[in-house]
Amino acid sequence: MKHLTVKSCMETDDSLGEESLQLHEKHHGVLEVASKVHMDNTQDLSIAYTPGVAEPCKRIAENKDDVYKYTLKENTVAIITDGSAILGLGNIGASAGLPVMEGKAIIFKELAGINAFPICLDTQETEEIIKTVKNIAPVFGGINLEDISAPRCFEIEERLKKELSIPVTHDDQHGTAIVTIAGLLNSLKLTGKKINEIKVVISGAGAAGMAIAKKLLHTGVRPENLLVCDRHGIISKKRTEGMNPEKEKIAEFSNTEEIEGNIDDAVAGSDVFIGVSVPGILTEKMVASMNNDAIIFAMANPIPEIMPSKAFEAGARIVATGRSDCPNQINNCLGFPGIFKGALETRATQINLEMELAAANALAAIVEQDGIEENYIIPNPLDKRVVPAVAKAVADAAIKSGVARKK
Amino acid sequence: MKHLTVKSCMETDDSLGEESLQLHEKHHGVLEVASKVHMDNTQDLSIAYTPGVAEPCKRIAENKDDVYKYTLKENTVAIITDGSAILGLGNIGASAGLPVMEGKAIIFKELAGINAFPICLDTQETEEIIKTVKNIAPVFGGINLEDISAPRCFEIEERLKKELSIPVTHDDQHGTAIVTIAGLLNSLKLTGKKINEIKVVISGAGAAGMAIAKKLLHTGVRPENLLVCDRHGIISKKRTEGMNPEKEKIAEFSNTEEIEGNIDDAVAGSDVFIGVSVPGILTEKMVASMNNDAIIFAMANPIPEIMPSKAFEAGARIVATGRSDCPNQINNCLGFPGIFKGALETRATQINLEMELAAANALAAIVEQDGIEENYIIPNPLDKRVVPAVAKAVADAAIKSGVARKK
Repeated sequence: MKHLTVKSCMETDDSLGEESLQLHEKHHGVLEVASKVHMDNTQDLSIAYTPGVAEPCKRIAENKDDVYKYTLKENTVAIITDGSAILGLGNIGASAGLPVMEGKAIIFKELAGINAFPICLDTQETEEIIKTVKNIAPVFGGINLEDISAPRCFEIEERLKKELSIPVTHDDQHGTAIVTIAGLLNSLKLTGKKINEIKVVISGAGAAGMAIAKKLLHTGVRPENLLVCDRHGIISKKRTEGMNPEKEKIAEFSNTEEIEGNIDDAVAGSDVFIGVSVPGILTEKMVASMNNDAIIFAMANPIPEIMPSKAFEAGARIVATGRSDCPNQINNCLGFPGIFKGALETRATQINLEMELAAANALAAIVEQDGIEENYIIPNPLDKRVVPAVAKAVADAAIKSGVARKK
Repeated sequence: MKHLTVKSCMETDDSLGEESLQLHEKHHGVLEVASKVHMDNTQDLSIAYTPGVAEPCKRIAENKDDVYKYTLKENTVAIITDGSAILGLGNIGASAGLPVMEGKAIIFKELAGINAFPICLDTQETEEIIKTVKNIAPVFGGINLEDISAPRCFEIEERLKKELSIPVTHDDQHGTAIVTIAGLLNSLKLTGKKINEIKVVISGAGAAGMAIAKKLLHTGVRPENLLVCDRHGIISKKRTEGMNPEKEKIAEFSNTEEIEGNIDDAVAGSDVFIGVSVPGILTEKMVASMNNDAIIFAMANPIPEIMPSKAFEAGARIVATGRSDCPNQINNCLGFPGIFKGALETRATQINLEMELAAANALAAIVEQDGIEENYIIPNPLDKRVVPAVAKAVADAAIKSGVARKK
């Protein structure tokens, strides 16, 4: 099997933006709503619409669960944003976020056969977002929260998980964490490092950084070996500058030896650097200060924390980014289609940690089966084995952990 | 041209409900979300999704109107219900209303090429419905309110019309009124009656009755010749029983001679009976008490206010119903696809009275061109001339009345 090499990501392809503009203008977006049946005569109309349609309505009125039997709900997800953290573009608002949500929706359909519809909210108030999502929930079998800025995204997700009985997940947190862990597990196999021994630095304490940190602990990283850094340096209980309730939580569960310092101090002597922060923050000097066989996930988009070529020159063994033109692309597309497919197929009431870690292991296993290499620690997003494998692992975990309503 | 005759509607087809159940179960609903583009390789993914998609996002952030250029908004309508007045089934709730909304959505697509997505709300509080619809509006080019019970539907529609700059219409009110008026105009031509002379009785003072009454006045019916009846009889300023703020309004603009009595009194000596009420309320004796060439629109669903055969036996000249198996089906499908098409194509800020009456006249003209007959006062819902003709008339009226943002 041939994989991308570092050579392919030396140049930026400026034409992609222009091609994207043309594509979106030509089709007026990339998404449409379609009919599964034809309307050729009055009989068709009488069956799909009135008077025939009264019958499925009555059945659902008698037994609410029949909504899964007679409507699109069973296989439909809402992709919900408030436009506050769109890609790396920031708070550009609901309308400007719509192309991203449409793009995500077609990935849901093309990769996993799931109907996904974009909902861009004209509010950024936490309580109002929660209320609105709950109000529109009846049509959907699952809720994918997307590009909502921290710290509001934490409360919104937590509350919706509690107050709705369908799966809710904030993909910027959990999707990113799941794919990162899959890649990390394979990187450790290749380098012979053990998860309970590695020292890990996370750069970025937003939605993704928080979720990755929590899930790494559940995967076996020891709290004293996990340092999370933001623009003020290492987060610790002793630090007072730039703290907030979410960072207080990070200080609770990581860095239990209460190390203080800047990101350079954190990276020196570490095994793994995970960047979900800003371009260029990781220097060659910092990479050189890491342990042998350094593993670097530089996922800032579109310009990573360090370009792969520089990281290798400074001694890194494995480099992953978020870019589609570089090897080892840590792409959420590897997660959400299969995760929701598994959750919807089992009519799970939630997407829990067991299901998430099962997805990460399933992703890692596909690569292991082919043979892990420096340039191949994670599957290609369009590998046709990915969605079925992830969906099956997630469905099995849903059943095993008792959240499946259908087996 | 061959039209349905009264013989076809002597029997009810009980198999429609069963066929509808099977259809909805087989496909898990009749609606799906689809991609307009394929995802065959990483390049496709990079253009339709990240990193390419950042470019249309940036353009929209710079110029909000570009959301019409680069996304599905331009051609997408939300069909919104709170489940409180689903067909003739009543307040069966959000989930049970979903099959109707899916059916309506596929009619939008099959007949007019419009993307329509069902939103079934888990709330029936007026303020919360208004807030929720406003919050989700950025994705939609228009809002079709559906099956929301009176009197809440009036305030919800009025407020949303004021507070949103995209077309909002409650189809149970205006769609029904537009198609009714189209049929009535042709009935008058056939019988030689003049609109400013006819006496009209409306049975039913809900959403549809209210809208029909108002629009009849705008079409030329004189206020003293218009009587609206509910279960308590004729609505008048003198009446005290069973009044509410909406009925007070009806008493203001109709029945200016303040006639009192029951529905039998109203119907005696009238030219036109319009039923949007309950099965069987119009008796043969009442029909016999009407003027010559009586025109009867018995639109209660699925069982009309009087069956056509009985109405004819009692002397009616023209009978229309809501049934697809009878002649002269007054079906909202004749209106909403073309009305929204005309409104979306001109990017109208609203659907105003001029646009609504233009739609009614366009519908009537199609039949007139073919030759009006007793069994043919309104086009067949699947007549391929309907949507283009209505859309053009509505678009022209939008431009002429100054609400079009695109010409």
